[in-house]
Amino acid sequence: MNRQELVNLIKEKQSYLCVGLDTDIQKIPKHLLSHADPVFAFNKAIIDATKDLCVAYKINTAFYESMGMRGWESLQRTIEYIPEGIFTIADAKRGDIGNTSTQYAKTFFETYKFDSVTVAPYMGKDSVTPFLQFSEKWAILLGLTSNEGSQDFQMQQIGDEFLFEKVLKAGMEWGTPENLMFVVGATQSSQLGYIRKLVPDHFFLVPGVGAQGGSLEEISTQAMNKDCGLLVNASRAIIYAGNGDDFATDARRVAKQYQVEMAGYLNKMVAAV
Amino acid sequence: MNRQELVNLIKEKQSYLCVGLDTDIQKIPKHLLSHADPVFAFNKAIIDATKDLCVAYKINTAFYESMGMRGWESLQRTIEYIPEGIFTIADAKRGDIGNTSTQYAKTFFETYKFDSVTVAPYMGKDSVTPFLQFSEKWAILLGLTSNEGSQDFQMQQIGDEFLFEKVLKAGMEWGTPENLMFVVGATQSSQLGYIRKLVPDHFFLVPGVGAQGGSLEEISTQAMNKDCGLLVNASRAIIYAGNGDDFATDARRVAKQYQVEMAGYLNKMVAAV
Repeated sequence: MNRQELVNLIKEKQSYLCVGLDTDIQKIPKHLLSHADPVFAFNKAIIDATKDLCVAYKINTAFYESMGMRGWESLQRTIEYIPEGIFTIADAKRGDIGNTSTQYAKTFFETYKFDSVTVAPYMGKDSVTPFLQFSEKWAILLGLTSNEGSQDFQMQQIGDEFLFEKVLKAGMEWGTPENLMFVVGATQSSQLGYIRKLVPDHFFLVPGVGAQGGSLEEISTQAMNKDCGLLVNASRAIIYAGNGDDFATDARRVAKQYQVEMAGYLNKMVAAV
Repeated sequence: MNRQELVNLIKEKQSYLCVGLDTDIQKIPKHLLSHADPVFAFNKAIIDATKDLCVAYKINTAFYESMGMRGWESLQRTIEYIPEGIFTIADAKRGDIGNTSTQYAKTFFETYKFDSVTVAPYMGKDSVTPFLQFSEKWAILLGLTSNEGSQDFQMQQIGDEFLFEKVLKAGMEWGTPENLMFVVGATQSSQLGYIRKLVPDHFFLVPGVGAQGGSLEEISTQAMNKDCGLLVNASRAIIYAGNGDDFATDARRVAKQYQVEMAGYLNKMVAAV
Protein backbone atom coordinates (compact mmCIF):
# COMPACT_ATOMS: atom_id res chain seq x y z
CA MET A 1 0.00 0.00 0.00
CA ASN A 2 1.40 3.41 -0.89
CA ARG A 3 1.23 6.57 1.17
CA GLN A 4 -1.63 8.19 -0.71
CA GLU A 5 -3.75 5.05 -0.35
CA LEU A 6 -3.09 5.02 3.37
CA VAL A 7 -4.00 8.70 3.70
CA ASN A 8 -7.21 8.11 1.74
CA LEU A 9 -8.07 5.12 3.93
CA ILE A 10 -7.72 7.25 7.05
CA LYS A 11 -10.01 9.91 5.61
CA GLU A 12 -12.63 7.41 4.45
CA LYS A 13 -12.75 5.47 7.69
CA GLN A 14 -12.26 8.53 9.91
CA SER A 15 -9.79 6.45 11.83
CA TYR A 16 -6.07 6.00 12.30
CA LEU A 17 -6.50 3.03 14.58
CA CYS A 18 -4.17 0.07 14.36
CA VAL A 19 -5.37 -3.06 16.14
CA GLY A 20 -2.50 -5.08 17.57
CA LEU A 21 -2.96 -8.83 17.28
CA ASP A 22 -0.60 -9.80 20.13
CA THR A 23 -2.61 -12.94 20.49
CA ASP A 24 -1.52 -15.07 23.45
CA ILE A 25 -3.16 -18.50 23.56
CA GLN A 26 -3.02 -18.30 27.38
CA LYS A 27 -5.25 -15.23 27.34
CA ILE A 28 -7.95 -15.96 24.79
CA PRO A 29 -11.43 -17.12 25.88
CA LYS A 30 -11.37 -20.77 26.89
CA HIS A 31 -14.21 -21.79 24.58
CA LEU A 32 -11.93 -21.14 21.57
CA LEU A 33 -9.46 -23.80 22.61
CA SER A 34 -11.57 -26.52 20.99
CA HIS A 35 -10.91 -24.97 17.55
CA ALA A 36 -8.27 -26.58 15.35
CA ASP A 37 -6.44 -23.21 15.32
CA PRO A 38 -7.60 -21.27 18.39
CA VAL A 39 -5.32 -18.29 17.73
CA PHE A 40 -6.70 -17.86 14.23
CA ALA A 41 -10.27 -18.38 15.47
CA PHE A 42 -9.70 -15.54 17.93
CA ASN A 43 -8.05 -13.27 15.35
CA LYS A 44 -10.80 -13.95 12.81
CA ALA A 45 -13.46 -12.90 15.30
CA ILE A 46 -11.49 -9.77 16.24
CA ILE A 47 -10.93 -8.85 12.58
CA ASP A 48 -14.61 -9.38 11.71
CA ALA A 49 -15.57 -7.16 14.65
CA THR A 50 -13.10 -4.31 14.00
CA LYS A 51 -12.27 -4.20 10.28
CA ASP A 52 -14.56 -1.24 9.53
CA LEU A 53 -13.12 0.75 12.45
CA CYS A 54 -9.37 0.43 11.94
CA VAL A 55 -6.97 1.15 9.10
CA ALA A 56 -4.24 -1.27 10.13
CA TYR A 57 -3.55 -4.55 11.87
CA LYS A 58 -0.23 -5.15 13.59
CA ILE A 59 0.84 -8.72 14.16
CA ASN A 60 3.37 -9.14 16.96
CA THR A 61 5.31 -12.04 15.49
CA ALA A 62 6.85 -13.17 18.80
CA PHE A 63 3.53 -14.52 20.02
CA TYR A 64 3.27 -16.68 16.89
CA GLU A 65 6.93 -17.69 16.70
CA SER A 66 6.85 -19.00 20.26
CA MET A 67 4.33 -21.63 19.17
CA GLY A 68 6.61 -22.97 16.46
CA MET A 69 5.11 -24.28 13.24
CA ARG A 70 1.54 -24.01 14.54
CA GLY A 71 2.14 -20.36 15.30
CA TRP A 72 3.42 -19.59 11.81
CA GLU A 73 0.33 -21.33 10.43
CA SER A 74 -1.88 -19.10 12.59
CA LEU A 75 0.09 -16.07 11.41
CA GLN A 76 -0.30 -17.05 7.77
CA ARG A 77 -4.05 -17.67 8.11
CA THR A 78 -4.41 -14.33 9.89
CA ILE A 79 -2.52 -12.25 7.34
CA GLU A 80 -4.48 -13.93 4.53
CA TYR A 81 -7.77 -13.22 6.32
CA ILE A 82 -7.14 -9.49 6.77
CA PRO A 83 -9.23 -7.79 4.05
CA GLU A 84 -7.49 -6.24 1.05
CA GLY A 85 -7.07 -2.51 1.56
CA ILE A 86 -6.17 -2.59 5.25
CA PHE A 87 -2.55 -1.80 6.07
CA THR A 88 -0.61 -4.68 7.64
CA ILE A 89 2.36 -4.47 9.98
CA ALA A 90 4.68 -7.31 10.92
CA ASP A 91 5.88 -6.15 14.33
CA ALA A 92 9.03 -8.22 14.20
CA LYS A 93 11.79 -5.71 15.06
CA ARG A 94 14.29 -7.26 12.69
CA GLY A 95 17.67 -5.91 11.62
CA ASP A 96 21.00 -7.48 10.67
CA ILE A 97 23.84 -7.02 8.18
CA GLY A 98 22.73 -6.26 4.63
CA ASN A 99 22.32 -9.68 3.05
CA THR A 100 20.54 -10.96 6.15
CA SER A 101 18.21 -7.95 6.34
CA THR A 102 17.35 -8.66 2.71
CA GLN A 103 16.24 -12.14 3.78
CA TYR A 104 14.06 -10.63 6.53
CA ALA A 105 12.55 -8.18 4.05
CA LYS A 106 11.71 -11.07 1.73
CA THR A 107 10.19 -12.96 4.66
CA PHE A 108 7.67 -10.30 5.52
CA PHE A 109 7.12 -8.54 2.17
CA GLU A 110 7.17 -11.51 -0.21
CA THR A 111 6.57 -14.73 1.72
CA TYR A 112 3.88 -13.30 4.05
CA LYS A 113 2.88 -10.23 1.99
CA PHE A 114 2.83 -7.69 4.80
CA ASP A 115 2.83 -4.02 3.84
CA SER A 116 5.42 -3.16 6.47
CA VAL A 117 7.80 -4.49 9.09
CA THR A 118 9.27 -2.89 12.22
CA VAL A 119 13.06 -2.57 12.09
CA ALA A 120 15.68 -2.13 14.84
CA PRO A 121 18.32 0.53 14.13
CA TYR A 122 21.36 -0.52 16.20
CA MET A 123 23.33 -1.99 13.28
CA GLY A 124 22.96 1.16 11.16
CA LYS A 125 22.37 2.01 7.53
CA ASP A 126 23.12 -1.26 5.76
CA SER A 127 20.82 -3.08 8.20
CA VAL A 128 17.89 -0.79 7.38
CA THR A 129 18.12 0.07 3.68
CA PRO A 130 17.39 -3.48 2.42
CA PHE A 131 13.85 -2.98 3.77
CA LEU A 132 13.44 0.11 1.56
CA GLN A 133 13.95 -1.63 -1.77
CA PHE A 134 10.43 -3.02 -2.22
CA SER A 135 7.75 -1.09 -4.08
CA GLU A 136 4.84 0.06 -1.88
CA LYS A 137 6.37 -1.65 1.16
CA TRP A 138 7.50 0.08 4.33
CA ALA A 139 10.14 -0.12 7.02
CA ILE A 140 8.95 1.16 10.39
CA LEU A 141 12.14 2.11 12.21
CA LEU A 142 12.31 2.14 16.00
CA GLY A 143 12.80 5.74 17.09
CA LEU A 144 11.69 6.26 20.66
CA THR A 145 9.98 3.30 22.30
CA SER A 146 7.50 3.43 25.17
CA ASN A 147 9.15 0.97 27.55
CA GLU A 148 11.24 1.78 30.60
CA GLY A 149 14.40 0.55 28.85
CA SER A 150 14.11 3.37 26.32
CA GLN A 151 16.02 5.40 28.92
CA ASP A 152 19.06 3.11 28.75
CA PHE A 153 20.33 3.99 25.28
CA GLN A 154 17.71 5.89 23.25
CA MET A 155 17.74 8.78 25.72
CA GLN A 156 21.52 8.99 25.95
CA GLN A 157 22.98 12.31 24.88
CA ILE A 158 25.25 12.38 21.82
CA GLY A 159 26.59 15.90 21.43
CA ASP A 160 23.52 18.13 21.68
CA GLU A 161 20.94 15.47 20.83
CA PHE A 162 19.63 12.17 22.09
CA LEU A 163 20.46 8.89 20.36
CA PHE A 164 16.84 8.51 19.24
CA GLU A 165 17.04 11.90 17.47
CA LYS A 166 20.13 10.70 15.62
CA VAL A 167 18.16 7.62 14.59
CA LEU A 168 15.23 9.73 13.37
CA LYS A 169 17.53 11.99 11.34
CA ALA A 170 19.41 9.05 9.87
CA GLY A 171 16.13 7.35 8.97
CA MET A 172 14.99 10.48 7.14
CA GLU A 173 18.19 10.35 5.08
CA TRP A 174 17.91 6.64 4.29
CA GLY A 175 14.21 6.54 3.46
CA THR A 176 11.39 8.84 2.41
CA PRO A 177 7.90 9.55 3.74
CA GLU A 178 6.77 7.05 1.08
CA ASN A 179 8.66 4.04 2.40
CA LEU A 180 9.70 4.70 5.98
CA MET A 181 7.75 5.33 9.18
CA PHE A 182 9.00 5.61 12.74
CA VAL A 183 7.92 3.94 15.96
CA VAL A 184 7.42 6.78 18.43
CA GLY A 185 6.36 5.79 21.93
CA ALA A 186 3.21 7.23 23.41
CA THR A 187 4.21 7.32 27.07
CA GLN A 188 6.73 10.00 26.07
CA SER A 189 3.91 12.24 24.92
CA SER A 190 5.63 15.38 26.23
CA GLN A 191 8.20 14.76 23.51
CA LEU A 192 5.80 13.95 20.69
CA GLY A 193 5.36 17.56 19.60
CA TYR A 194 9.10 18.07 19.54
CA ILE A 195 9.57 14.91 17.49
CA ARG A 196 6.87 15.98 15.03
CA LYS A 197 8.75 19.26 14.42
CA LEU A 198 11.89 17.26 13.78
CA VAL A 199 10.10 14.81 11.46
CA PRO A 200 7.28 16.74 9.80
CA ASP A 201 6.21 14.35 7.03
CA HIS A 202 6.76 10.74 8.01
CA PHE A 203 4.08 8.57 9.51
CA PHE A 204 4.52 7.57 13.16
CA LEU A 205 3.40 4.23 14.50
CA VAL A 206 2.48 5.03 18.09
CA PRO A 207 2.30 1.95 20.29
CA GLY A 208 1.18 1.90 23.85
CA VAL A 209 -2.16 3.68 23.89
CA GLY A 210 -4.66 1.96 26.19
CA ALA A 211 -3.23 -0.82 28.35
CA GLN A 212 0.21 0.82 28.24
CA GLY A 213 -1.29 4.15 29.24
CA GLY A 214 -0.72 6.77 26.53
CA SER A 215 -3.42 9.41 25.99
CA LEU A 216 -4.97 9.45 22.55
CA GLU A 217 -5.76 13.14 22.88
CA GLU A 218 -2.19 14.12 23.68
CA ILE A 219 -0.81 11.96 20.89
CA SER A 220 -3.24 13.37 18.35
CA THR A 221 -2.89 16.99 19.39
CA GLN A 222 0.88 16.90 19.44
CA ALA A 223 1.81 14.61 16.59
CA MET A 224 -0.79 14.83 13.82
CA ASN A 225 0.36 16.39 10.56
CA LYS A 226 -1.62 17.57 7.54
CA ASP A 227 -1.97 13.99 6.24
CA CYS A 228 -2.76 12.73 9.75
CA GLY A 229 0.63 10.98 9.78
CA LEU A 230 -0.33 8.70 12.62
CA LEU A 231 -1.15 5.07 13.16
CA VAL A 232 -2.07 4.65 16.80
CA ASN A 233 -1.92 1.09 18.03
CA ALA A 234 -3.96 -0.54 20.75
CA SER A 235 -3.48 -4.22 21.42
CA ARG A 236 -4.54 -5.59 24.79
CA ALA A 237 -7.03 -2.75 25.44
CA ILE A 238 -9.03 -3.94 22.43
CA ILE A 239 -8.42 -7.64 21.94
CA TYR A 240 -8.75 -8.52 25.62
CA ALA A 241 -11.57 -6.04 26.35
CA GLY A 242 -13.77 -9.02 27.18
CA ASN A 243 -13.09 -12.64 27.93
CA GLY A 244 -16.48 -14.31 27.49
CA ASP A 245 -18.51 -15.61 24.57
CA ASP A 246 -19.01 -12.05 23.36
CA PHE A 247 -15.34 -11.03 23.47
CA ALA A 248 -15.54 -9.77 19.88
CA THR A 249 -18.45 -7.47 20.74
CA ASP A 250 -16.42 -6.10 23.65
CA ALA A 251 -13.43 -5.58 21.35
CA ARG A 252 -15.65 -3.76 18.86
CA ARG A 253 -17.04 -1.50 21.56
CA VAL A 254 -13.56 -0.34 22.61
CA ALA A 255 -12.37 -0.01 19.00
CA LYS A 256 -15.45 2.07 18.24
CA GLN A 257 -14.67 4.42 21.14
CA TYR A 258 -11.18 4.98 19.73
CA GLN A 259 -12.51 5.49 16.21
CA VAL A 260 -15.11 8.05 17.31
CA GLU A 261 -12.51 9.93 19.31
CA MET A 262 -10.15 9.83 16.33
CA ALA A 263 -12.83 11.16 13.98
CA GLY A 264 -13.04 14.18 16.27
CA TYR A 265 -9.31 14.89 16.06
CA LEU A 266 -9.34 14.39 12.29
CA ASN A 267 -12.13 16.93 11.95
CA LYS A 268 -10.22 19.44 14.06
CA MET A 269 -7.22 18.89 11.80
CA VAL A 270 -9.29 19.60 8.67
CA ALA A 271 -10.75 22.70 10.33
CA ALA A 272 -7.24 23.91 11.22
CA VAL A 273 -5.84 23.59 7.67
CA MET B 1 24.88 -25.75 28.16
CA ASN B 2 26.60 -23.99 31.06
CA ARG B 3 29.83 -22.04 30.95
CA GLN B 4 32.04 -24.77 32.42
CA GLU B 5 30.75 -27.29 29.89
CA LEU B 6 31.52 -24.86 27.07
CA VAL B 7 35.03 -24.23 28.41
CA ASN B 8 35.62 -27.99 28.71
CA LEU B 9 34.36 -28.52 25.17
CA ILE B 10 36.83 -25.96 23.83
CA LYS B 11 39.71 -27.66 25.64
CA GLU B 12 38.72 -31.14 24.50
CA LYS B 13 38.23 -30.23 20.87
CA GLN B 14 41.08 -27.71 20.80
CA SER B 15 38.73 -25.43 18.94
CA TYR B 16 36.58 -22.37 19.47
CA LEU B 17 35.14 -22.53 15.99
CA CYS B 18 31.50 -21.75 15.36
CA VAL B 19 30.16 -22.82 11.98
CA GLY B 20 27.50 -20.46 10.67
CA LEU B 21 24.67 -22.21 8.86
CA ASP B 22 23.54 -19.19 6.80
CA THR B 23 22.19 -21.63 4.29
CA ASP B 24 20.83 -19.97 1.18
CA ILE B 25 18.98 -22.33 -1.15
CA GLN B 26 20.23 -20.22 -4.08
CA LYS B 27 23.84 -20.99 -3.19
CA ILE B 28 23.88 -24.70 -2.33
CA PRO B 29 25.10 -27.29 -4.85
CA LYS B 30 22.45 -27.92 -7.49
CA HIS B 31 22.43 -31.70 -7.04
CA LEU B 32 20.84 -31.21 -3.59
CA LEU B 33 17.74 -29.57 -5.02
CA SER B 34 16.18 -32.97 -5.74
CA HIS B 35 16.03 -33.67 -1.98
CA ALA B 36 12.69 -33.20 -0.22
CA ASP B 37 14.42 -30.67 2.05
CA PRO B 38 17.52 -29.39 0.23
CA VAL B 39 18.51 -26.95 2.96
CA PHE B 40 18.49 -29.68 5.58
CA ALA B 41 20.31 -32.08 3.24
CA PHE B 42 23.02 -29.44 2.87
CA ASN B 43 23.20 -28.70 6.61
CA LYS B 44 23.30 -32.41 7.46
CA ALA B 45 26.29 -32.93 5.19
CA ILE B 46 28.05 -29.84 6.62
CA ILE B 47 27.36 -30.95 10.20
CA ASP B 48 28.60 -34.49 9.50
CA ALA B 49 31.77 -33.06 7.98
CA THR B 50 32.54 -30.50 10.71
CA LYS B 51 31.07 -31.69 14.02
CA ASP B 52 34.38 -32.92 15.42
CA LEU B 53 36.10 -29.63 14.51
CA CYS B 54 33.74 -27.00 15.90
CA VAL B 55 32.20 -26.32 19.30
CA ALA B 56 29.16 -24.38 18.07
CA TYR B 57 26.73 -24.03 15.20
CA LYS B 58 25.06 -20.70 14.53
CA ILE B 59 21.82 -20.72 12.58
CA ASN B 60 21.02 -17.41 10.89
CA THR B 61 17.25 -17.57 11.20
CA ALA B 62 16.56 -15.03 8.43
CA PHE B 63 17.58 -17.50 5.74
CA TYR B 64 15.04 -20.00 7.07
CA GLU B 65 12.27 -17.51 7.84
CA SER B 66 12.35 -16.20 4.29
CA MET B 67 11.23 -19.63 3.05
CA GLY B 68 8.16 -19.62 5.25
CA MET B 69 6.90 -22.87 6.71
CA ARG B 70 9.38 -24.96 4.71
CA GLY B 71 12.21 -22.91 6.14
CA TRP B 72 11.10 -23.42 9.73
CA GLU B 73 10.90 -27.14 9.02
CA SER B 74 14.48 -27.08 7.74
CA LEU B 75 15.52 -25.12 10.83
CA GLN B 76 13.84 -27.60 13.15
CA ARG B 77 15.39 -30.62 11.41
CA THR B 78 18.78 -28.92 11.56
CA ILE B 79 18.67 -28.03 15.27
CA GLU B 80 17.50 -31.58 16.06
CA TYR B 81 20.33 -33.05 13.98
CA ILE B 82 23.11 -31.11 15.71
CA PRO B 83 24.71 -33.60 18.12
CA GLU B 84 24.13 -33.23 21.86
CA GLY B 85 27.03 -31.41 23.47
CA ILE B 86 27.63 -28.85 20.73
CA PHE B 87 26.63 -25.28 21.59
CA THR B 88 23.81 -23.89 19.45
CA ILE B 89 23.14 -20.26 18.58
CA ALA B 90 19.96 -18.84 17.08
CA ASP B 91 21.30 -15.79 15.29
CA ALA B 92 17.95 -14.02 15.31
CA LYS B 93 18.79 -10.55 16.74
CA ARG B 94 15.52 -10.27 18.63
CA GLY B 95 14.51 -7.67 21.22
CA ASP B 96 11.22 -6.03 22.19
CA ILE B 97 9.34 -4.89 25.30
CA GLY B 98 9.45 -7.32 28.21
CA ASN B 99 6.46 -9.57 27.62
CA THR B 100 7.32 -9.83 23.92
CA SER B 101 10.99 -10.61 24.58
CA THR B 102 9.76 -13.38 26.88
CA GLN B 103 7.90 -14.85 23.90
CA TYR B 104 11.07 -14.70 21.80
CA ALA B 105 13.06 -16.37 24.58
CA LYS B 106 10.47 -19.16 24.73
CA THR B 107 10.66 -19.49 20.94
CA PHE B 108 14.36 -20.19 20.83
CA PHE B 109 15.02 -21.77 24.25
CA GLU B 110 11.90 -23.91 24.66
CA THR B 111 10.25 -24.46 21.28
CA TYR B 112 13.49 -24.94 19.33
CA LYS B 113 15.83 -25.79 22.23
CA PHE B 114 18.75 -23.57 21.25
CA ASP B 115 21.39 -22.86 23.89
CA SER B 116 21.51 -19.18 23.00
CA VAL B 117 20.02 -16.37 20.95
CA THR B 118 21.48 -13.10 19.69
CA VAL B 119 19.72 -10.04 21.12
CA ALA B 120 19.54 -6.40 19.93
CA PRO B 121 20.07 -3.79 22.68
CA TYR B 122 18.27 -0.68 21.39
CA MET B 123 15.18 -1.06 23.61
CA GLY B 124 17.23 -1.41 26.80
CA LYS B 125 17.12 -3.44 29.98
CA ASP B 126 13.58 -4.81 29.96
CA SER B 127 14.06 -6.00 26.37
CA VAL B 128 17.17 -8.01 27.29
CA THR B 129 16.61 -9.42 30.79
CA PRO B 130 13.78 -11.81 29.75
CA PHE B 131 16.43 -13.78 27.84
CA LEU B 132 18.43 -14.22 31.07
CA GLN B 133 15.76 -16.08 33.03
CA PHE B 134 16.36 -19.55 31.59
CA SER B 135 18.71 -22.01 33.26
CA GLU B 136 21.83 -22.83 31.21
CA LYS B 137 20.59 -20.62 28.35
CA TRP B 138 22.35 -17.55 27.00
CA ALA B 139 21.64 -14.14 25.56
CA ILE B 140 24.31 -12.94 23.13
CA LEU B 141 23.96 -9.18 23.12
CA LEU B 142 25.06 -7.10 20.14
CA GLY B 143 28.00 -4.98 21.25
CA LEU B 144 30.10 -3.89 18.30
CA THR B 145 29.14 -5.38 14.96
CA SER B 146 31.39 -5.86 11.96
CA ASN B 147 29.30 -4.13 9.29
CA GLU B 148 29.78 -0.65 7.89
CA GLY B 149 26.62 0.57 9.63
CA SER B 150 28.26 -0.02 13.02
CA GLN B 151 29.67 3.49 12.54
CA ASP B 152 26.22 5.08 12.46
CA PHE B 153 25.18 4.60 16.08
CA GLN B 154 27.45 2.11 17.88
CA MET B 155 30.49 4.34 17.36
CA GLN B 156 28.75 7.53 18.45
CA GLN B 157 30.30 9.23 21.45
CA ILE B 158 28.23 9.51 24.63
CA GLY B 159 30.22 11.51 27.16
CA ASP B 160 33.67 9.92 27.15
CA GLU B 161 32.66 6.59 25.69
CA PHE B 162 31.08 5.09 22.58
CA LEU B 163 27.52 3.80 22.58
CA PHE B 164 28.76 0.23 22.16
CA GLU B 165 30.81 0.60 25.39
CA LYS B 166 27.68 1.71 27.19
CA VAL B 167 25.93 -1.37 25.86
CA LEU B 168 28.78 -3.64 27.02
CA LYS B 169 28.75 -2.11 30.51
CA ALA B 170 24.97 -2.32 30.76
CA GLY B 171 25.06 -5.95 29.62
CA MET B 172 27.59 -6.75 32.35
CA GLU B 173 25.19 -5.30 34.92
CA TRP B 174 22.15 -7.14 33.58
CA GLY B 175 23.74 -10.55 33.06
CA THR B 176 26.73 -12.57 34.21
CA PRO B 177 29.52 -14.44 32.43
CA GLU B 178 27.30 -17.50 32.97
CA ASN B 179 24.31 -16.32 30.95
CA LEU B 180 25.39 -13.46 28.71
CA MET B 181 27.89 -13.16 25.87
CA PHE B 182 28.54 -10.27 23.51
CA VAL B 183 28.77 -10.03 19.75
CA VAL B 184 32.05 -8.25 19.05
CA GLY B 185 32.88 -7.63 15.41
CA ALA B 186 36.10 -8.95 14.00
CA THR B 187 36.77 -6.27 11.41
CA GLN B 188 37.28 -3.90 14.32
CA SER B 189 40.20 -5.99 15.54
CA SER B 190 42.20 -2.94 16.62
CA GLN B 191 39.53 -2.47 19.27
CA LEU B 192 39.29 -6.07 20.39
CA GLY B 193 42.06 -5.78 22.97
CA TYR B 194 40.49 -2.68 24.41
CA ILE B 195 37.10 -4.37 24.61
CA ARG B 196 38.61 -7.42 26.31
CA LYS B 197 40.05 -5.17 29.03
CA LEU B 198 36.62 -3.64 29.51
CA VAL B 199 34.92 -7.05 29.57
CA PRO B 200 37.41 -9.52 31.02
CA ASP B 201 35.24 -12.56 31.70
CA HIS B 202 32.36 -12.78 29.26
CA PHE B 203 32.47 -14.87 26.12
CA PHE B 204 32.58 -12.99 22.81
CA LEU B 205 30.91 -14.28 19.69
CA VAL B 206 33.12 -12.93 16.93
CA PRO B 207 31.45 -12.96 13.53
CA GLY B 208 33.07 -12.08 10.30
CA VAL B 209 36.25 -14.14 10.14
CA GLY B 210 36.90 -15.53 6.67
CA ALA B 211 34.58 -14.19 3.97
CA GLN B 212 34.06 -10.96 5.93
CA GLY B 213 37.79 -10.58 6.35
CA GLY B 214 38.75 -10.63 10.05
CA SER B 215 42.09 -12.19 10.99
CA LEU B 216 41.89 -15.17 13.31
CA GLU B 217 45.34 -14.42 14.67
CA GLU B 218 44.50 -10.84 15.63
CA ILE B 219 41.22 -11.87 17.19
CA SER B 220 42.81 -14.64 19.20
CA THR B 221 45.83 -12.66 20.33
CA GLN B 222 43.82 -9.66 21.38
CA ALA B 223 40.64 -11.10 22.79
CA MET B 224 41.33 -14.50 24.34
CA ASN B 225 40.98 -14.75 28.11
CA LYS B 226 42.03 -17.49 30.54
CA ASP B 227 38.96 -19.58 29.65
CA CYS B 228 39.43 -18.83 25.95
CA GLY B 229 36.29 -16.69 26.09
CA LEU B 230 35.84 -16.76 22.33
CA LEU B 231 33.54 -18.31 19.80
CA VAL B 232 34.79 -17.34 16.37
CA ASN B 233 32.26 -17.76 13.62
CA ALA B 234 32.85 -18.54 9.98
CA SER B 235 29.88 -19.01 7.72
CA ARG B 236 30.39 -18.59 3.98
CA ALA B 237 34.13 -19.32 4.14
CA ILE B 238 33.32 -22.84 5.35
CA ILE B 239 29.89 -23.80 4.05
CA TYR B 240 30.48 -22.49 0.54
CA ALA B 241 34.15 -23.56 0.34
CA GLY B 242 33.17 -25.86 -2.51
CA ASN B 243 30.16 -26.12 -4.76
CA GLY B 244 30.45 -29.59 -6.27
CA ASP B 245 29.59 -33.13 -5.19
CA ASP B 246 32.34 -32.98 -2.58
CA PHE B 247 31.26 -29.64 -1.03
CA ALA B 248 31.27 -31.22 2.44
CA THR B 249 34.87 -32.34 2.03
CA ASP B 250 35.79 -28.81 1.00
CA ALA B 251 33.95 -27.43 4.03
CA ARG B 252 35.80 -29.86 6.29
CA ARG B 253 39.16 -28.86 4.84
CA VAL B 254 38.59 -25.18 5.65
CA ALA B 255 37.12 -25.95 9.09
CA LYS B 256 40.15 -28.13 9.81
CA GLN B 257 42.49 -25.25 8.92
CA TYR B 258 40.71 -23.02 11.39
CA GLN B 259 40.73 -25.70 14.09
CA VAL B 260 44.45 -26.37 13.72
CA GLU B 261 45.23 -22.66 13.85
CA MET B 262 42.98 -22.32 16.92
CA ALA B 263 44.73 -25.23 18.67
CA GLY B 264 47.94 -23.26 18.30
CA TYR B 265 46.50 -20.16 19.96
CA LEU B 266 44.95 -22.25 22.74
CA ASN B 267 48.33 -23.82 23.46
CA LYS B 268 49.99 -20.43 23.62
CA MET B 269 47.30 -19.36 26.09
CA VAL B 270 47.98 -22.38 28.32
CA ALA B 271 51.71 -21.68 28.11
CA ALA B 272 51.11 -18.05 29.09
CA VAL B 273 49.06 -18.86 32.21
